Amino acid sequence: MSLSAYYLRPDGTVQRDLSKKQIKDAYESGEGLLWVDVEETIEEDGSFLEHDLHFHHLTVENCISPLIHSPKIDDFGDYVFITAHGINHEAESEIVETAELALFLGPNFVVSNHNTPLYCVEAVRQMVEDDGRPMRRGADFLAHALVDILIDNVIPTIDKMSDFAEEIEEEVIHNPHQALLEAIMKLKRSTLRIRRAIAPQRDILNRLSRGDYPMVKEEARIFYRDIYDHLIRIEDLNQAIRERADNALTTYLSSVANRQNEVMKVLSVVAAIFLPLTLVAGIYGMNFDYMPELRVHWAYFAVLGFMGAVIAGVVWWFWAKRWFNWGHRRFIRVNPFLVDGEKIRGHLTRLTKRPKGQ
Amino acid sequence: MSLSAYYLRPDGTVQRDLSKKQIKDAYESGEGLLWVDVEETIEEDGSFLEHDLHFHHLTVENCISPLIHSPKIDDFGDYVFITAHGINHEAESEIVETAELALFLGPNFVVSNHNTPLYCVEAVRQMVEDDGRPMRRGADFLAHALVDILIDNVIPTIDKMSDFAEEIEEEVIHNPHQALLEAIMKLKRSTLRIRRAIAPQRDILNRLSRGDYPMVKEEARIFYRDIYDHLIRIEDLNQAIRERADNALTTYLSSVANRQNEVMKVLSVVAAIFLPLTLVAGIYGMNFDYMPELRVHWAYFAVLGFMGAVIAGVVWWFWAKRWFNWGHRRFIRVNPFLVDGEKIRGHLTRLTKRPKGQ
Amino acid sequence: MSLSAYYLRPDGTVQRDLSKKQIKDAYESGEGLLWVDVEETIEEDGSFLEHDLHFHHLTVENCISPLIHSPKIDDFGDYVFITAHGINHEAESEIVETAELALFLGPNFVVSNHNTPLYCVEAVRQMVEDDGRPMRRGADFLAHALVDILIDNVIPTIDKMSDFAEEIEEEVIHNPHQALLEAIMKLKRSTLRIRRAIAPQRDILNRLSRGDYPMVKEEARIFYRDIYDHLIRIEDLNQAIRERADNALTTYLSSVANRQNEVMKVLSVVAAIFLPLTLVAGIYGMNFDYMPELRVHWAYFAVLGFMGAVIAGVVWWFWAKRWFNWGHRRFIRVNPFLVDGEKIRGHLTRLTKRPKGQ
Amino acid sequence: MSLSAYYLRPDGTVQRDLSKKQIKDAYESGEGLLWVDVEETIEEDGSFLEHDLHFHHLTVENCISPLIHSPKIDDFGDYVFITAHGINHEAESEIVETAELALFLGPNFVVSNHNTPLYCVEAVRQMVEDDGRPMRRGADFLAHALVDILIDNVIPTIDKMSDFAEEIEEEVIHNPHQALLEAIMKLKRSTLRIRRAIAPQRDILNRLSRGDYPMVKEEARIFYRDIYDHLIRIEDLNQAIRERADNALTTYLSSVANRQNEVMKVLSVVAAIFLPLTLVAGIYGMNFDYMPELRVHWAYFAVLGFMGAVIAGVVWWFWAKRWFNWGHRRFIRVNPFLVDGEKIRGHLTRLTKRPKGQ
Amino acid sequence: MSLSAYYLRPDGTVQRDLSKKQIKDAYESGEGLLWVDVEETIEEDGSFLEHDLHFHHLTVENCISPLIHSPKIDDFGDYVFITAHGINHEAESEIVETAELALFLGPNFVVSNHNTPLYCVEAVRQMVEDDGRPMRRGADFLAHALVDILIDNVIPTIDKMSDFAEEIEEEVIHNPHQALLEAIMKLKRSTLRIRRAIAPQRDILNRLSRGDYPMVKEEARIFYRDIYDHLIRIEDLNQAIRERADNALTTYLSSVANRQNEVMKVLSVVAAIFLPLTLVAGIYGMNFDYMPELRVHWAYFAVLGFMGAVIAGVVWWFWAKRWFNWGHRRFIRVNPFLVDGEKIRGHLTRLTKRPKGQ
Repeated sequence: MSLSAYYLRPDGTVQRDLSKKQIKDAYESGEGLLWVDVEETIEEDGSFLEHDLHFHHLTVENCISPLIHSPKIDDFGDYVFITAHGINHEAESEIVETAELALFLGPNFVVSNHNTPLYCVEAVRQMVEDDGRPMRRGADFLAHALVDILIDNVIPTIDKMSDFAEEIEEEVIHNPHQALLEAIMKLKRSTLRIRRAIAPQRDILNRLSRGDYPMVKEEARIFYRDIYDHLIRIEDLNQAIRERADNALTTYLSSVANRQNEVMKVLSVVAAIFLPLTLVAGIYGMNFDYMPELRVHWAYFAVLGFMGAVIAGVVWWFWAKRWFNWGHRRFIRVNPFLVDGEKIRGHLTRLTKRPKGQ
Repeated sequence: MSLSAYYLRPDGTVQRDLSKKQIKDAYESGEGLLWVDVEETIEEDGSFLEHDLHFHHLTVENCISPLIHSPKIDDFGDYVFITAHGINHEAESEIVETAELALFLGPNFVVSNHNTPLYCVEAVRQMVEDDGRPMRRGADFLAHALVDILIDNVIPTIDKMSDFAEEIEEEVIHNPHQALLEAIMKLKRSTLRIRRAIAPQRDILNRLSRGDYPMVKEEARIFYRDIYDHLIRIEDLNQAIRERADNALTTYLSSVANRQNEVMKVLSVVAAIFLPLTLVAGIYGMNFDYMPELRVHWAYFAVLGFMGAVIAGVVWWFWAKRWFNWGHRRFIRVNPFLVDGEKIRGHLTRLTKRPKGQ
Repeated sequence: MSLSAYYLRPDGTVQRDLSKKQIKDAYESGEGLLWVDVEETIEEDGSFLEHDLHFHHLTVENCISPLIHSPKIDDFGDYVFITAHGINHEAESEIVETAELALFLGPNFVVSNHNTPLYCVEAVRQMVEDDGRPMRRGADFLAHALVDILIDNVIPTIDKMSDFAEEIEEEVIHNPHQALLEAIMKLKRSTLRIRRAIAPQRDILNRLSRGDYPMVKEEARIFYRDIYDHLIRIEDLNQAIRERADNALTTYLSSVANRQNEVMKVLSVVAAIFLPLTLVAGIYGMNFDYMPELRVHWAYFAVLGFMGAVIAGVVWWFWAKRWFNWGHRRFIRVNPFLVDGEKIRGHLTRLTKRPKGQ
Repeated sequence: MSLSAYYLRPDGTVQRDLSKKQIKDAYESGEGLLWVDVEETIEEDGSFLEHDLHFHHLTVENCISPLIHSPKIDDFGDYVFITAHGINHEAESEIVETAELALFLGPNFVVSNHNTPLYCVEAVRQMVEDDGRPMRRGADFLAHALVDILIDNVIPTIDKMSDFAEEIEEEVIHNPHQALLEAIMKLKRSTLRIRRAIAPQRDILNRLSRGDYPMVKEEARIFYRDIYDHLIRIEDLNQAIRERADNALTTYLSSVANRQNEVMKVLSVVAAIFLPLTLVAGIYGMNFDYMPELRVHWAYFAVLGFMGAVIAGVVWWFWAKRWFNWGHRRFIRVNPFLVDGEKIRGHLTRLTKRPKGQ
Repeated sequence: MSLSAYYLRPDGTVQRDLSKKQIKDAYESGEGLLWVDVEETIEEDGSFLEHDLHFHHLTVENCISPLIHSPKIDDFGDYVFITAHGINHEAESEIVETAELALFLGPNFVVSNHNTPLYCVEAVRQMVEDDGRPMRRGADFLAHALVDILIDNVIPTIDKMSDFAEEIEEEVIHNPHQALLEAIMKLKRSTLRIRRAIAPQRDILNRLSRGDYPMVKEEARIFYRDIYDHLIRIEDLNQAIRERADNALTTYLSSVANRQNEVMKVLSVVAAIFLPLTLVAGIYGMNFDYMPELRVHWAYFAVLGFMGAVIAGVVWWFWAKRWFNWGHRRFIRVNPFLVDGEKIRGHLTRLTKRPKGQ
């Protein structure tokens, strides 16, 4: 069975591993604080949520369904149903997936639901096991702890993407190959994916922090507001990564064009040097009876000298037209200058580790 | 005649195949629940709707006209007139068409109108024939069933487009031909078409779920809200497909440029190798009387050796400048990394089959 | 003189060709319905409008001025002044011009003003001459008839542009020449022009249909709402044409790049075949005394054979690298697939001819 | 001293050249209408405005500072402070500069401030000198006259830019050189500059015309609304110019690509004709002992004939593949078609000259 | 210890270097004006702020954390907590960093917090040390002084970026090398960074100037409005720089294409001249027994003459097709014309130096 429940009794003691019967009793007592966590919800759990805890059929269906749902908040009077998105950072695979956490938040209960193991649930469970702290200030603070950790857990992924963007930026200047394009495209899609997961949650947290729901107490609102500020910051960082990807793309495409210029210049220089000389050699290879130069003793060496002069002339001409150093060896007058570029990563790393206060 | 009608009598029995007279009586009784479905509306049906059921002239004109109308909701006090859009997925042809469903929704009647056979009407009719279930909870629930199935039926098309996008992404890397461009353009137009059909419906369902209309009861609103959430999800998926098409386009255009680079490199290498050697051969083909090298016994072999050395030198030079592996054989330092790309399709498939609850 | 006036007397008879005196009397009676149409307004007409009918100076100046004014609606208490835009479709020239219709709408009068002949005025005048129908339901219905026909008359131009977009799409694949670019640019400018004429009218019709003005009766509002829906539909179609133009542009630019690839491939293949062979011929054309091959009886034929082998080898190499069929003869795995592309035109044609109901 | 003042006495006479003392008296009388124009404001003027006329310190600082300020309107209860932007069209230089007019508008006074000579102030001053007309209807009408002329004076610049856009469009087709790119960029920057000057003023005039400020009388509002409509029109025209610049840019870039195609085709044709023939000549220039063709009497002429045939064949092949007329001589099936392109300029010219009514 | 405090006693004297005890007493007295500045906040300072001054835990955590937080304003009833962003212009390094200033603003106290030395705090401290002026008008004016200087200090960076944009624009025309692309990208990223720092502050200052918070007095609001206007102006200038960067990018990419055209033209001209002549030379180098021309005495000179004629003909042909002056020597009909481009920098410089009034 995938249910685990904690009950903070009115007397301040924490009860663990409640049976369904005990959950129902605690739920109906209207006192203390009940936290039920449902993982990999099956039909049986759904039935318990719908018939014993009286949650709305649609919300229970939402929990059972293995699909991704858009972040949202629905008000059912006695409780609100929240769907929040984060990123399941534990997964070791290359594909980082969006993680979904559903919460039923009532005046004295929190029911959390998720179909994959979530770090945020694990972390809060640990704290509850330790000393019951996250449950002592009420249901709204418990829900805040879950959502806060869920969303802050996006940061390591942003951090990884920022590293990735940096590698791409370096590669695109020194080694602009086709595979890089694919990497840039993947990075862009990742930022879009994160934006789509994060952006709709701003509205939800705005409503939670503004006092639309009575189960979120006045003193808890500022904490939801704090999550809201984190979302804004995550979007900012994500947007910055996207801009770096776009710039890398422009640089890549321009590199391809520059490289083609270089190839063409090699070709043109080769042709400009050797085609005229081949003509000269061809002329003196003609078999006319009367070609007076052929009889001159030093003519062969004169022609060789002339050929050398032509080579020197052509090379000088290209040099004078600066073909050999386009975009390479010229003095660059422009002083590179950047407003706040490198700091982002440092911030990210620290942000991930920052202490949480409640 | 293209009318078919069902009447759920106040005593709970379902009456089928009502005559126009019976429809009118049931309509005027103000009791039970009447469902009239009008397919391929003709003038005569229009006249019945306008004069017997007293619907507004403009709405009836809307039903008769074979045109596509923008999604909208109009409030006429006694009833609302809803125009909803879906996709007629039954059609086997390459061109998937937008399907239009018009609904008159009153306190105890639903009149549905459409000019092409619609899967959603068929599915609800089947359920009504079976046990009358969709009609037992009132007109608002019946209308919800129709619109819900209509909109969920967009999912298989999105699924097909997602497959298509995947094929394009694979092709664009391995075989970037001109025909692919056309496919990308078609995919982009399809996503735009779907966005135009879906986006205006968000407002309609928002208003239905928010309690603007008295014929939608409190308990039904959350179900309309559920359709609203599906619309958001469909738009998300559609937008993701569009972004993949845009990325495929960029990749395609970059491939064309890369391929040109490759062509030019072949040309430059060939010219750089053979033009100098041809000059050498030309020089020793000149007919000067005094060319001392020609008399040397081993000179011919020396020249051949020199030519071989030139070839080796040029090849080495190009190899040192890494011309031969631009974008191909280099070690790629960048670790491909993607946030939630592949999961979309799996979700789609399951979403199409999910059970509907009311 | 460019005034023409109709007066629907309170007894239901229609009086024609009123003199200015009669117009003034009818205007001041406050009964029946007066319609004055002013074409190519001159100073004298302006003076009549300002001093006899007491319209505001700025509105009259607006009528006299030959300029295009942005669509707007101004409320003067007793009457509203509407500026609406359509397209003068009668004009046979290549340049289709925006047409402007100014309307003074009061409780029992409509004064229409335009500086070019307008089809909508002509059509309504004809109906009034026939049986006075458009005037029988009041000033708001008469104004609706004028604006409705004015705006629906944009459809044939949209239709023509849609044809044009189709021709361009076909040409751009089979014959991408520079002149096509100009045509695409013209199409884009046309869609922008139409958007600029149509978009500001949405707000005007929204306000008319929402009951902001007392001279628009409750029962007429739904008819103005109907025009609003047409505007939305026209914008949709116009936007779809714009997207097709954008796609055609991308296709065109990509075709230019592909064509260049083709040119370069011809060049590279020619060079790769003939430059090495020319070197071989050059080598055996050298005049060294000791070149043992030259003495061999079958050497000439061996060299010819070797040359043939080189040609075969190079051709095979290019064939193996698939240079000859890039983007042309390959099997295309991608199944073209399009959501609702072709239907737009059919709709347009029918939309133009649809019966008008009031 | 840079102050000039006019005072319309309550008895209807206009007093000129008031001293600072007289200005202060008239200002404090609360009767008649006082107009003070301050040009090239110095500290002393600022002190007079701040201490004698009691304007807020920040507004006076605004007047003294030679900087450009964003358009805005600030309400100080007794008066409003308006910053409006136009274009100083008198300047003969290539660089057209944004002109700034600051206005203090109170119930019976207008104080105008500007640091460069402005045509609008000059024009109104002339009218006041003539017959005092712009001052006879109150402070709101005087301020309207100043702002109206200021903004209409943008039109000649728009007109010039429209001419410029037309020249660019013609050049870009017939002579697409690099300098044109710079011209396009300048045009784009100019349109952006005008948009930035015009757009924020819409909000200001909207608020003035909507009755937010008591010193703008009911009857004057429609005149401010009229300026608002002009702003919309100017933005429309400006936007149209920007679109033409964007189109010219696309055409230019496409021309560069087309021209490159042409260059490459010349190269490819030359190589395809002469490289094979050179090989043939090279073969018969080889010095093998046994080359039977060389002994044939008519062989030389046969080879020449063969060469001619090769040339004809290659030319025919390129002709058959339509290389010689890509984008040039083909029949263009597409009928150029444009909605309302050419009329814009005509309108502009007339708009500049139109009579102003108050 | 990193706290420094000033206290303006109710009797108008300024007390410096208060101890924590004194700060707490002054804070609780509710009289006078207390300014506490906390730099490089450590845990101990945080504890003082939280437990002695009773600020909310989350705001104190915000101060201690070394991270960048999005600009925001939070209302805690007794005080507001403001996070504002500027640019730390003092830093001499190439990387200009965003600076963050946190403010607690209450009726009679201001607590400022920052983790890096800030010029604005230093400047205000100096003024307080001098004569206590910024503190004499109340807490709202003191906070205004800090934020005003913080934000105006962005101007020198904008100025530097404007210089940089100008250099880039010049370079991109005369020397378009790859390194320039990187500089353009950096400039674009800088403008985005500034926009992200500035844009969210508009909302904060709008709320401060609109009277949402009682601790901002009526008379101080117009000063906050003034900062708001500066933000708008800074965004305008920043946006203009971004547009110049975008234009430079387009110019750069077009230059690369033009340069390639030039390279290809050199190649084509060389090939078109020398390949035909090499063929001619090759023909007369053939060893046929019967080649009558070879016997003609003047044939060699005739061939040389013919070759010269071919060169002249090809050169003439290219000249006639205007290959040699594409984009270079042609008369440019278009008169460069620009609305207000050069003035921006001058304004900037002056703006930085302008006197501040309170």
